[in-house]
Amino acid sequence: MRIAVIAGGVGGARFVRGLREAVRRASDIDPLAGAAIDVIVNTGDDWWLAGLRITPDFDSMLYTLSGQNDEQRGWGRVGESERVAGELQAWGVTPEWFTLGDLDLGTHIARTSWLRAGETPSQVAARLQQRWELGVRLHPATDQEVDTHVIIAGDRGAAAGSREIHFQEWWTRYRAALPAAGFVQHGVDRAVPSEGALDALLDADVILVAPSNPVVSIGTQLSIPGMLEAITAEPAPIVGVSPIIGGASVRGMAEACLAAIGVAVDAGAIARHYGLRRDAGLLDGWLVAEEDAALVDGLEADGFAARAVPLWMRDLDTAAALASEAVAFALGLSS
Amino acid sequence: MRIAVIAGGVGGARFVRGLREAVRRASDIDPLAGAAIDVIVNTGDDWWLAGLRITPDFDSMLYTLSGQNDEQRGWGRVGESERVAGELQAWGVTPEWFTLGDLDLGTHIARTSWLRAGETPSQVAARLQQRWELGVRLHPATDQEVDTHVIIAGDRGAAAGSREIHFQEWWTRYRAALPAAGFVQHGVDRAVPSEGALDALLDADVILVAPSNPVVSIGTQLSIPGMLEAITAEPAPIVGVSPIIGGASVRGMAEACLAAIGVAVDAGAIARHYGLRRDAGLLDGWLVAEEDAALVDGLEADGFAARAVPLWMRDLDTAAALASEAVAFALGLSS
Repeated sequence: MRIAVIAGGVGGARFVRGLREAVRRASDIDPLAGAAIDVIVNTGDDWWLAGLRITPDFDSMLYTLSGQNDEQRGWGRVGESERVAGELQAWGVTPEWFTLGDLDLGTHIARTSWLRAGETPSQVAARLQQRWELGVRLHPATDQEVDTHVIIAGDRGAAAGSREIHFQEWWTRYRAALPAAGFVQHGVDRAVPSEGALDALLDADVILVAPSNPVVSIGTQLSIPGMLEAITAEPAPIVGVSPIIGGASVRGMAEACLAAIGVAVDAGAIARHYGLRRDAGLLDGWLVAEEDAALVDGLEADGFAARAVPLWMRDLDTAAALASEAVAFALGLSS
Repeated sequence: MRIAVIAGGVGGARFVRGLREAVRRASDIDPLAGAAIDVIVNTGDDWWLAGLRITPDFDSMLYTLSGQNDEQRGWGRVGESERVAGELQAWGVTPEWFTLGDLDLGTHIARTSWLRAGETPSQVAARLQQRWELGVRLHPATDQEVDTHVIIAGDRGAAAGSREIHFQEWWTRYRAALPAAGFVQHGVDRAVPSEGALDALLDADVILVAPSNPVVSIGTQLSIPGMLEAITAEPAPIVGVSPIIGGASVRGMAEACLAAIGVAVDAGAIARHYGLRRDAGLLDGWLVAEEDAALVDGLEADGFAARAVPLWMRDLDTAAALASEAVAFALGLSS
């Protein structure tokens, strides 16, 4: 079996790590046994800083799946230090609100050197995955640079006095607290899904949408021309996992993104935002949290296959159980 | 008074620091009082590594004159660490024999980001000098990239089986122990002296050639079309300081460079290699070490103004005294 996962960074990485674990634990008669996992990773958070190409979601995947991540902090490398960061700030090439760790900088320098040498983001991603045995394959959603920007609402509303900043500034510097009037991805019209993403979708028996930010992690990928069509082109069932539990986002700040596009912080509202595949939307099925079990009937009435399951990924066991549920749910839809 | 110094890295930096100190100590009636110092810095050691532009001689100047240098080690930043270097080597983008310090990497990243943004090496050099009060102005010899390569003599001599490596590999990896058949600077024909260098030479009352490597520090600068002409165009006296004391180079390894171009490791031979200004060469005067005082008469007979002085720069006092001697000697030539 081949499983394709559409995912963002930290939350997506935990989900994929759980899925990898579920595959590892699968008995020979379990359909998950020996399953191959391809992850299509959001590139909307990527940016240039101090002449270096930074890809936060890809790196979260890489570090989490390789065991190099800092579990305490939730992001970045374990054992990280910040000696270079002080220099970069002293030279004025990085802002105070964005600290690059030393170990992490090694990744950025290597990536940038390969990009500068003419390799595509997909080729670079393939190189970066060779260092550690990940057990999954990671594909940037697109090889084109389509960084997300945020339109900041002006004092008198977006129409008057609005300005635009890079998503990373909004997210990291302002902690998403500046009211956003919307998101833009300059150049997205010229982007196409990466070959690795297309191949993974073409070959997939099951497609999962990770419990990542619906706007700036999943939404940015769906906005790439041809991506939604590629996801829904084959008969493989598509099941999403809600990033909202009991009316709040699992990892915070998604609320601000949803507010900017007028979607309620509600597991049902997000499923409807993604839309039903048969109506040119994304989903066949949708997993909500047990806390949101009351939403299942309404979703089913609207045509979504829906189920309430334990959604908190507290540890590897719960993440593996959730991923296993998602696959089983999807396989049930396709049979 | 304005003093222009043509210099390489570590040894040149010590000389310039001594000159700055001599100016600081000068009494009001000393001609050195209030003298402005412009340093034309060798760019022949520069190279690209892991997508970063590294300029060893400029950085030696910057760190030495700012007090940021590691006096014990003789190069690099004080309090340096090497956390990123291990990552870069693990990613395979830097060789094991060239370690980039963390603090130093900050400089390289900043420099490269400004270069990538379209600034010239001179503009970048100006930026880098703003962080600390140097008391001198540093100018890259040229804004064109003319990195030095070394022709390695083959087993049967240079003609058969010779190969070429970057100077940094020869110098740092092989410690200049691979027999060199010569040096090449690809693209030097298209290079010109930087504007800062030309302005400094035009305005100079005294021009000093630091006791730097005559081949790969001073020689590379003289090979830039128009540089020798610019140095010798004005009447300002030109005095060089020998990098050889008692038949050995002060900082080692210059011997291998001299051997490659067929010049003896001898203070007199180097003066004759530089040549007399009146014969389309470089020098009016030449300072040799007290240990080499026996060479003075021969040099004088050949037309060089020559003097034997204490040449070891053991500390700031001796470096200041040497620089002061060089300026006084030059002023004596012009009067």
